[in-house]
Amino acid sequence: MSGLKILDCTLRDGGLTNNFFFEDSFVKDLYRTNVEAGVAYMEMGYRASKDLFKESDFGKWKFCDEEALREIVGENPTGMKLSVMADVGRTNYERDILPKKESVLDMIRIATYSRTIDEAIDAVEFCHSLGYETTVNIMAISNDDPKTVARALEKLAASSVDVIYLVDSFGSFYPHQAAALARQYVDIAFPAGKQVGIHAHNNQQLAFANTIEGMRNGASMLDVTVNGLGRGAGNCSAELLVGYLMGQGVSCREEPLIRFIEKHMLALKEAGVVWGYDIPYLLTGQRNQHPSKAIEFIRECRTQYTDFLRELAL
Amino acid sequence: MSGLKILDCTLRDGGLTNNFFFEDSFVKDLYRTNVEAGVAYMEMGYRASKDLFKESDFGKWKFCDEEALREIVGENPTGMKLSVMADVGRTNYERDILPKKESVLDMIRIATYSRTIDEAIDAVEFCHSLGYETTVNIMAISNDDPKTVARALEKLAASSVDVIYLVDSFGSFYPHQAAALARQYVDIAFPAGKQVGIHAHNNQQLAFANTIEGMRNGASMLDVTVNGLGRGAGNCSAELLVGYLMGQGVSCREEPLIRFIEKHMLALKEAGVVWGYDIPYLLTGQRNQHPSKAIEFIRECRTQYTDFLRELAL
Repeated sequence: MSGLKILDCTLRDGGLTNNFFFEDSFVKDLYRTNVEAGVAYMEMGYRASKDLFKESDFGKWKFCDEEALREIVGENPTGMKLSVMADVGRTNYERDILPKKESVLDMIRIATYSRTIDEAIDAVEFCHSLGYETTVNIMAISNDDPKTVARALEKLAASSVDVIYLVDSFGSFYPHQAAALARQYVDIAFPAGKQVGIHAHNNQQLAFANTIEGMRNGASMLDVTVNGLGRGAGNCSAELLVGYLMGQGVSCREEPLIRFIEKHMLALKEAGVVWGYDIPYLLTGQRNQHPSKAIEFIRECRTQYTDFLRELAL
Repeated sequence: MSGLKILDCTLRDGGLTNNFFFEDSFVKDLYRTNVEAGVAYMEMGYRASKDLFKESDFGKWKFCDEEALREIVGENPTGMKLSVMADVGRTNYERDILPKKESVLDMIRIATYSRTIDEAIDAVEFCHSLGYETTVNIMAISNDDPKTVARALEKLAASSVDVIYLVDSFGSFYPHQAAALARQYVDIAFPAGKQVGIHAHNNQQLAFANTIEGMRNGASMLDVTVNGLGRGAGNCSAELLVGYLMGQGVSCREEPLIRFIEKHMLALKEAGVVWGYDIPYLLTGQRNQHPSKAIEFIRECRTQYTDFLRELAL
């Protein structure tokens, strides 16, 4: 169990619920909390291109400027590493990713679809050449045929990427499927000297179960968010995974997370930020569809679930 | 998959959240919904002894008088069977369980601790002699040593019971543990011609995952409640399991459940009935403790989770 690494992406996936408008006090406390809890990597947000996204529409964690990062972490004098996510097609890598020695970041996570795997690998090689650790997170594989996924994995195995991520974008996988996929990823990644990560969504209340099953089948970089904060049904809750890992003898601590939830997450809910398991997310997850329609439905405060079910079938 | 049977215990476990004060319209619609959804057994509530529980303190589903049952189901002219739960020590079996031919019930579920397994078996033999199907649900086994559980299972294997239930009373089991326990139960039950059931709680967001894993390892009677309604963190949600089983080709339907949730469960929440995953339930589940302290904490509308965490450690 010693090689396990928890990655907290509360700001990044959670930022999709509030357009990244987190208070500095939230971000500072989260940083401290993660250090105390034994989190290995904290994802600070996206590094999205300001050519594509208007700065005034988003909080600063959509862009993660070095200056904004340093206001929180200084030179990051901790053992915890920092990452940002940089989506293929939404990041200007050449302009916006600085050489590692000029950045407080340690890792760039590159999100892609299987159809843009070549661009993702270009981004990996560029970030690698700048001195970063890298991951590639292939999204929406539940809609890919198995051969497409296998080909993408083979290409990644031949690249400089450090970690290949199994991603359940729609929250549609069951635990035995997550286990089988993790084994497939591991079988390709390990001989190439790479690790496997897992990023789960909670549409079917399976984010935690799928994360455990992924881990038991070789995934070692485990994505969580505090209280499951994240797009739609949210993610694997940090407090669930940390509790489990403590029971397995892994060095991590739950109490800082519980304190953070008490102090910040309740306030976030009261402020109207909405996330977590709900019927519309279940229905898109079961049908292997993107949660966008469910997010829209909930944003409109609709509760006609039966109508929604029929709309999905159209 | 054809031998799988869904058992809906919304009224019974859910009744622990509102002292069984369900409106008749709720119960009637739930009955129709379960028939339409393909539920095999509907548990109508408890048959608790009126010597021990004051009638005025509870809704009628705490007692499930035959008259109350027939007001809802008539002579139950459906393929769906009906059950009540009768706890060892809380039911006057001789007085309150009628001969099968005088009752609209099909099955008596006997809940017990391992230390009262002999009384449970006496109850089984009595109910069996009256003509009922029976189950025994051994509670709180996460606090028993394995030998105690094995002994109880051996005794049940030698009894007339039809179904032996794996119960995760505290929501403390992980999926691989649920799988291993299901195999242990199956190994003793099957040679004796008995089936295995599973009843899970959602303290760690694992009720659904544990139910699937139990099923994949031989459990065939699967407890659910609509929208997970149940004591504390609640149970395995019917809509989750039915969605999964439909994907496996099992003959059941999700839409009636979704319609019921839209019509009744939202109103129940608005009326102040509280259930479902929350931090205090997580903390008791992780520590393998009864949720009573968490239920009390939430009833008092407290949110000092860190204090609660420390109280649990005392």
